Amino acid sequence: MAAFQPADPHYQDRVRESFDKQGLMKTLGAELTAAGPGFCEIRMPYGEGLTQQHGFFHAGGLAAIVDTAGGYAGFTLFDETDGILTVEFKVNLVAPATGEAVIARGEVIRPGRTLTVTKGEVVSVVDGEEKVCALMQQTLMRIVNRPDVVG
Amino acid sequence: MAAFQPADPHYQDRVRESFDKQGLMKTLGAELTAAGPGFCEIRMPYGEGLTQQHGFFHAGGLAAIVDTAGGYAGFTLFDETDGILTVEFKVNLVAPATGEAVIARGEVIRPGRTLTVTKGEVVSVVDGEEKVCALMQQTLMRIVNRPDVVG
Amino acid sequence: MAAFQPADPHYQDRVRESFDKQGLMKTLGAELTAAGPGFCEIRMPYGEGLTQQHGFFHAGGLAAIVDTAGGYAGFTLFDETDGILTVEFKVNLVAPATGEAVIARGEVIRPGRTLTVTKGEVVSVVDGEEKVCALMQQTLMRIVNRPDVVG
Amino acid sequence: MAAFQPADPHYQDRVRESFDKQGLMKTLGAELTAAGPGFCEIRMPYGEGLTQQHGFFHAGGLAAIVDTAGGYAGFTLFDETDGILTVEFKVNLVAPATGEAVIARGEVIRPGRTLTVTKGEVVSVVDGEEKVCALMQQTLMRIVNRPDVVG
Repeated sequence: MAAFQPADPHYQDRVRESFDKQGLMKTLGAELTAAGPGFCEIRMPYGEGLTQQHGFFHAGGLAAIVDTAGGYAGFTLFDETDGILTVEFKVNLVAPATGEAVIARGEVIRPGRTLTVTKGEVVSVVDGEEKVCALMQQTLMRIVNRPDVVG
Repeated sequence: MAAFQPADPHYQDRVRESFDKQGLMKTLGAELTAAGPGFCEIRMPYGEGLTQQHGFFHAGGLAAIVDTAGGYAGFTLFDETDGILTVEFKVNLVAPATGEAVIARGEVIRPGRTLTVTKGEVVSVVDGEEKVCALMQQTLMRIVNRPDVVG
Repeated sequence: MAAFQPADPHYQDRVRESFDKQGLMKTLGAELTAAGPGFCEIRMPYGEGLTQQHGFFHAGGLAAIVDTAGGYAGFTLFDETDGILTVEFKVNLVAPATGEAVIARGEVIRPGRTLTVTKGEVVSVVDGEEKVCALMQQTLMRIVNRPDVVG
Repeated sequence: MAAFQPADPHYQDRVRESFDKQGLMKTLGAELTAAGPGFCEIRMPYGEGLTQQHGFFHAGGLAAIVDTAGGYAGFTLFDETDGILTVEFKVNLVAPATGEAVIARGEVIRPGRTLTVTKGEVVSVVDGEEKVCALMQQTLMRIVNRPDVVG
């Protein structure tokens, strides 16, 4: 991964403030656990309210946190006055997600003036061991002078 | 759309029973509003617990219901003893999702012995008018003799 | 499909002129067979130079013509001075492509100031009968004042 | 990347033999330049027959070689009697592809009994320097006892 230089030195506050306003992340019990230049990590502990019919994590919940992790990964590199939109994302579900929590990590692959491309993964944590359960590729759009419009 | 003939005459009960076990759909307040041969519709009324930071529906919630709608669209055509997995899906977010509710519709494009391809869309309902806000393409996998394993 | 109103009355000439400059389409023996508002069709007759190792049409050739059909579907709705780029596309290969020719059709789902979303399909023609072999979802980007920059 | 152990010690011969039968790769002037366990590289020198209308490499050509590179990356890990199909792939085009050649690299992320997930990239080579121009995520399917059915 290339080393990125954030345009806004206060990008961490900006990311956290925005994340805290997302009702869905609260509903899912998802926490922002790390944000760095071009990087974001979100953790979601297991709960019965997150399951599909067999008690595994529902793919829709994994998609929600990895979309968000990719979006904020891009957002770390934006100017203070920029907003961000998810244009599209694609997710492959490669293993059933079980365990005490899942962790989504997004990272910027290609930052751009208008469009930014990220990749992401979700790992499940079983007895402290991580196992990949989902892979994502995502396109983000910068909205100039409309701060903090995420997905 | 081609007309599909369900292998299992009780497919509607099977879909509903499975849907009712999904903790995430309950958490999101999503309801199964229709299921037909190769088709499924899910409705999610607006709530503050479903938002991104500006009060719109979060893309992750839209992804969750359209993945589920596509999955059950495929499931309607399966044998009684088959399970189903989402292999992957891709979603384009084409407009901000506002309004009193969103409705996800999934339909089978190409049923198959092992893999089934579906498409889906999410519309937002604003003053009773529908407006497309997301488009999906999805791959499902049939799991023989393991009934009801959805994504 | 919605009815679209082209901004440029000479869009057909513009599409054809651009298509004729694409070296790859010539190499593949692909012909532009139709263009309408928000729509484009490309035909590629079978040849040994288009195959994978079993003599079927190679998926890469199908991807090339359906990407192009989607791109020009979007291009029909652009201003005379706009260029176009493929941002991304996703293709599902749903059946082996055999027969005397394949036909790719692209259509605009959601036109936009900056981004346009299209869908596409490829059918194979066997004894005059069409059979779907690939499905596409695509994002295009308008490049203002740089005419005719296609992906 | 995890280290993979090929099931078939002669996987390199098997990949090369299959690649040499692909008419499309010949037509595009593409060469197989490397194959390792879970990895494949394909190089395509510039030619006027590979262009879009402005003389850059056409996105369709990039898609064709990165699909093939991902497919053979998966194929390296298969049994001698297995065939392979591309189920779907998604490609983001992140920069115009210019220069003396493009190189596609595919690698297996998640091998599986039935489905295998790969990622890929295409770099353009300009004065000997590589620059990423496309990113791919792909799903492959193993066809048991039908050797060498690629894409």
